[in-house]
Amino acid sequence: MTEQLTLYSAKVCPYAQRVEIALQESKLDFTRFEVDLQNKPEWYAPKVNPASKVPAVSYGGPKVSADQPSPESQKIAESLVLLEFVADLSGKLLPKDPVQRARVRFFIDAISNSVVPLFYSVAVRGESPEKLYKGLETLQSLLPAEGFAAGPEFTIADAAIAPFLGRFDLVLKNDLGAYEEGEGVKVYEVVQTDPKFSRYRKYFADLKSRDSFKKTFDENYLKTVSAARFAPLRAEKKASKGSL
Amino acid sequence: MTEQLTLYSAKVCPYAQRVEIALQESKLDFTRFEVDLQNKPEWYAPKVNPASKVPAVSYGGPKVSADQPSPESQKIAESLVLLEFVADLSGKLLPKDPVQRARVRFFIDAISNSVVPLFYSVAVRGESPEKLYKGLETLQSLLPAEGFAAGPEFTIADAAIAPFLGRFDLVLKNDLGAYEEGEGVKVYEVVQTDPKFSRYRKYFADLKSRDSFKKTFDENYLKTVSAARFAPLRAEKKASKGSL
Ligand SMILES: N[C@@H](CCC(=O)N[C@@H](CS)C(=O)NCC(=O)O)C(=O)O
Ligand SMILES: N[C@@H](CCC(=O)N[C@@H](CS)C(=O)NCC(=O)O)C(=O)O
Repeated sequence: MTEQLTLYSAKVCPYAQRVEIALQESKLDFTRFEVDLQNKPEWYAPKVNPASKVPAVSYGGPKVSADQPSPESQKIAESLVLLEFVADLSGKLLPKDPVQRARVRFFIDAISNSVVPLFYSVAVRGESPEKLYKGLETLQSLLPAEGFAAGPEFTIADAAIAPFLGRFDLVLKNDLGAYEEGEGVKVYEVVQTDPKFSRYRKYFADLKSRDSFKKTFDENYLKTVSAARFAPLRAEKKASKGSL
Repeated sequence: MTEQLTLYSAKVCPYAQRVEIALQESKLDFTRFEVDLQNKPEWYAPKVNPASKVPAVSYGGPKVSADQPSPESQKIAESLVLLEFVADLSGKLLPKDPVQRARVRFFIDAISNSVVPLFYSVAVRGESPEKLYKGLETLQSLLPAEGFAAGPEFTIADAAIAPFLGRFDLVLKNDLGAYEEGEGVKVYEVVQTDPKFSRYRKYFADLKSRDSFKKTFDENYLKTVSAARFAPLRAEKKASKGSL
C-alpha cells in the first residue's frame, strides 16, 4: 500500500513537465491536477505551495480530492527537488553508482546555467534565436556519443532538459517568440540540416519518441498559447526599436 | 579497500569549503590540495576541471600525487553535485526518507537563490549590507525551530550554507566589503543583538562550533585576503560616486 501522490502541474510550464515526465517514466501512480496559472485557485498558495508556482507535489496523508488538499500530506515544490524525489521514491531514473549519479547531476547543473535560460532570452526577451546555436553546442558537448544524457538509460537529467528542447523546437518551427519575424524559421532550418547539430537531432528524436514526452507535451495547445503570449512581446519590441 | 579521493580546494572559496565541510563530517578519507587561484597550476584545467574552478574531486584510479592527476580517475566538479556525491559515497549527511531528502534539497535550492547571492551584492558590488537583513529573515523562515537546516542531524544543507554565513560574519565584523565604510559594523551590531535574529545566531553558533567548520575556515587568512580584495573595490566605488 503506497502513499498518495498528487502533482500540481500546468501544461504550459516546462518545469512542471520535467516532473510529469519523470513520474511517467517512474511508473509511480499519481493524480495530476491542472492549475490554471491565469486564474489560480485561491487555495493553491496557502494549501499547496506558498510560492504559488507549479510544479508542486502533495504526498501521503488521506486520499482527498486534489482541489481539497489535506494539511496532513507533505507538500514539496521546485522541479529539480521533485526530480530527485521521484528518483528516491521509485528507485528508478538515477543510477546506483555515486560517480554516475554525479554525472547526472552535473548535466542538470550545466544545462540549468547554459541551455535553460536561452528559452527566456529568445522567446521572451526577443534576443536573436541564433543564440541557440551556442546552447545546442554546449548541450552536445555534455552528451555522450550515443544514448541519453548520462548513458544508455533515461534519467532525471533527460527529464530536466526535454521540456526546454521541446519548446525550442516549437517556437522556432512556428516562428514564435519576441525575436524578429522570420528569424525563428531560419534558425530552425539550420538546426534541422547542419551536420554540426546531428547529435542534438538524434538526442531530441530519442526524447520525443518516448511515451513520457508524448503524454506531457501538448503541441497544439502550446502552439496556441505561445502564439498568444509571444506576439504582443514581439510587437512591443518592434515598437520600442522603431522609437529609438 | 576504498578508492582514493582528492579534493582540489582553495581556502578563499566558499563553494570549496562546502565540500570540505561535508568531507570532514562524512569521515571519508581524502587528500586535500590547495589550488592557488591567483596562479593556477597549468595542469589544473586540462587534467582536473576544464572550467578551471575549485572545488573539484578526483576519485578512484591509481594512488598518485595530487599534482599529477591520473587520466584514470573520475573527475567531478560543482559544489552542489559534490555534496550529493559525498552523501552517496558515505551514506551520511542525507536522511534516508525521500520526503526528508526533499526538505534538504529544497533548503539548498532556496538559499542558493536568496542568501548566497547577497555575498556578492554586498562584499563585491558594494550594495548596502542592510540587504542582509532580508536574507537572514529568509534563512530563518527556512529553519526549523531548533537543530539544523533539515532537523536534528547535520546534513549537506548545512554544509551548503555555512561558508556563506561565515563570510557574512567576517566581512561585517571587520567592515570589509565594497560598501561604504562603517556600514558593515553597524549591521553587524544589529545582527548580533536584535531579538529578531536570535534563531540565526543560534544556528550560526551551532555551525561554527563544529570541527568541520573550524578546520575549514581560516579566519585570519580570510580576513587578510578579504581586506586586500575588497578595499580597492570600495575605493573604486567611492571614486565613481564622487564623479557622478
Ligand atoms: N524554479 C521553479 C520554477 C517554476 C515556475 O517558474 N513555474 C511557473 C510556470 S512555468 C509558475 O508557476 N509561475 C507562477 C505564475 O505563473 O503565477 C521550478 O523549477 O519548479
Ligand atoms: N558553481 C561553482 C562555483 C565555483 C567557483 O566559482 N569557484 C571559484 C572560487 S570561489 C573559482 O574557482 N574561480 C576560478 C578562478 O578564480 O580562477 C560551484 O558551486 O562549485
